[in-house]
Amino acid sequence: MKNKLLTFLGIMFMLSANVTGQEAPWRFSRVESPQIHADRSVTFNLFAPAASEILLNGGWMGWGENVALVKNDTGLWSVTAGPLEPEIYTYAFYVDGVKVLDPANTSVVRDGRRFESMLLIPGERSALYMVRDVPHGTLSKVWYESPTLEMNRRMYVYTPPGYAESGDRYPVLYLLHGGGGDEDAWTTLGRTCQIMDNLIAEKRCRPMIVVMTNGNPGDAAAPGEEPVLEEARQRGGIFEMGTRRFEESLVKDVIPFVEKHYRTLAGSENRAVSGLSMGGMQTMNLGFDHPEMFSYYGVMSMGITGKDRSGRNWFQDVEARMQHLKEYGYQLYWVGCGTDDFLHDAAVNLVEEMKRHDMEVVYLETGGGHTWSNWRIYLSELAPLLFR
Amino acid sequence: MKNKLLTFLGIMFMLSANVTGQEAPWRFSRVESPQIHADRSVTFNLFAPAASEILLNGGWMGWGENVALVKNDTGLWSVTAGPLEPEIYTYAFYVDGVKVLDPANTSVVRDGRRFESMLLIPGERSALYMVRDVPHGTLSKVWYESPTLEMNRRMYVYTPPGYAESGDRYPVLYLLHGGGGDEDAWTTLGRTCQIMDNLIAEKRCRPMIVVMTNGNPGDAAAPGEEPVLEEARQRGGIFEMGTRRFEESLVKDVIPFVEKHYRTLAGSENRAVSGLSMGGMQTMNLGFDHPEMFSYYGVMSMGITGKDRSGRNWFQDVEARMQHLKEYGYQLYWVGCGTDDFLHDAAVNLVEEMKRHDMEVVYLETGGGHTWSNWRIYLSELAPLLFR
Repeated sequence: MKNKLLTFLGIMFMLSANVTGQEAPWRFSRVESPQIHADRSVTFNLFAPAASEILLNGGWMGWGENVALVKNDTGLWSVTAGPLEPEIYTYAFYVDGVKVLDPANTSVVRDGRRFESMLLIPGERSALYMVRDVPHGTLSKVWYESPTLEMNRRMYVYTPPGYAESGDRYPVLYLLHGGGGDEDAWTTLGRTCQIMDNLIAEKRCRPMIVVMTNGNPGDAAAPGEEPVLEEARQRGGIFEMGTRRFEESLVKDVIPFVEKHYRTLAGSENRAVSGLSMGGMQTMNLGFDHPEMFSYYGVMSMGITGKDRSGRNWFQDVEARMQHLKEYGYQLYWVGCGTDDFLHDAAVNLVEEMKRHDMEVVYLETGGGHTWSNWRIYLSELAPLLFR
Repeated sequence: MKNKLLTFLGIMFMLSANVTGQEAPWRFSRVESPQIHADRSVTFNLFAPAASEILLNGGWMGWGENVALVKNDTGLWSVTAGPLEPEIYTYAFYVDGVKVLDPANTSVVRDGRRFESMLLIPGERSALYMVRDVPHGTLSKVWYESPTLEMNRRMYVYTPPGYAESGDRYPVLYLLHGGGGDEDAWTTLGRTCQIMDNLIAEKRCRPMIVVMTNGNPGDAAAPGEEPVLEEARQRGGIFEMGTRRFEESLVKDVIPFVEKHYRTLAGSENRAVSGLSMGGMQTMNLGFDHPEMFSYYGVMSMGITGKDRSGRNWFQDVEARMQHLKEYGYQLYWVGCGTDDFLHDAAVNLVEEMKRHDMEVVYLETGGGHTWSNWRIYLSELAPLLFR
């Protein structure tokens, strides 16, 4: 009874002012959205009496597709989608042509410069992506000097549950994002902490450190997190993805920093590198150019591309470079790609070239395309194979 | 030349697919917004040819106020505000009555369940809030066992620049959020990492560890970050703010964890606690009930309130409790409040009560109200006074 009284008073007393911060109009959302039903269909609701048209676009739809919400006589717009497979989806409303996040949903993710509302449909596949009541690792935003790139740069470091207490040393997975992304991407859309926590709790995966760098060599950190320096801004973004400067900085700057500041296991047999799209290209480059550094490779949604429209072959030295990797050897070379991925042929090409060189390769082909849905699956499948 | 070619190919090759992720419609924003002009006026732009009305609400306006954007013949809506004082502001558009984040602005902050676009006007005051090219501390999301609250809970720990290399021990500031907030709040709206990095770089502040907990005793972590447990959900939020259970867990669970896992300096003279609003109440409670634990207190936008409408006096035992604090003593009791704050009288009351008890107190009165603008100023003013 005492607690209930205090509760009531607490709300009367402080909520209205503090939540609002006297800074912007705000009200309790009376709308529930998204509503996930027992059959995994989902109802989306948005209160907008003055709007003329509201569309929904969700990650389960095709590119550029949308579905219209219908307005009831109270001004509430609704639509039901699905049933949807257990997965994480992003979605947004378009109110009279303008993109709107779902105000009733506090899950919001950033993908590059784009924000979307997030929806998790519970089920077998997505169980790995949920925050569950298991021991959690620590995620740290760490700054390090990069003499190679002449910058102080930011990365994320995941240390597994028990790291602080155990005194043990751990192997390290270097996990690389794609073009347009940054060091946030694997921790948000990629659900790396949840996947690693859950795999480790289920003993399906060795406890390991996961290092998520910013793979854009001209950028110090994600948008808004980098120091305000005009020179950095002018260099930034993905505009240097073909230069191999990031790959060089990973070997010269990142790995020495990680191995100095964290309790890592020594030697190439305790280092893995994996990345998606641009990060898959960087993973391939690291294997070709620095095979002495790693024993495990995971190439996601990438491979050996043919000539592009300008006639340039991105992997023209592939014969000699692949031979270099073969001479050093490795424990695992893993490739994952979706059949609808625009780089599917390139991935198949990589796998076939490796086989032609009598190099062992594990290829996981999934449905779907160049999506975070696939990259979460690939991390979930790859991590259990590492450091065995 | 080679780099430029690679650059061009890289963009052609991967950007369109990876950024979009084949998951949602996306296009380069051709609109620049917000545009900060030399006189610190700001132009906001939103492309919305089909909208009927667009309003702007910004943190520099009064509660519930707004200003209309004007549409030009291309469908671009614009309005110019200010000049604005150097500060961090949040803002949002309202398109036909629906709240919209600025799609051209990648700075987005969450305040409780509310998302807003963020704008930083450079200048003397806001210089502390910017990411600058100075040594940066590390921010870690850490999970710890709370036997007191029967939960595995999350907090943020800031370790200052040089922590990893120095081997030194550091004093600790426990920094508490307000009602409706969570452990994210001080790191996002509060700009704690930037303020601490910049103060330490300018040698205005001792290097210290800053621990930012979740002050809602029924919650494990911020929304979407807590394990999906129905019991936790039912307890959660601010509905237990008056129970002093969080204060108990800070003393019994958080401080021992921090002092075990981080290189901290021993003793109450190396512990400070500060908080805003609800966190200010918790700071007062910690001083009254556990004066043996701390030597530095910072009460922001809080104080001794009178009786509320129900006749309840939240600080009815204040005489004995204040005496308890006085007997143990402290190095600094600091109070900050704005003249427009709805708790201004309460803060003045606290200061006067302390003086009546011959207890030393430092009071900083600012303009403004119950706002993050003030709380950032208070942290900037308080941190240099700690552990001296």
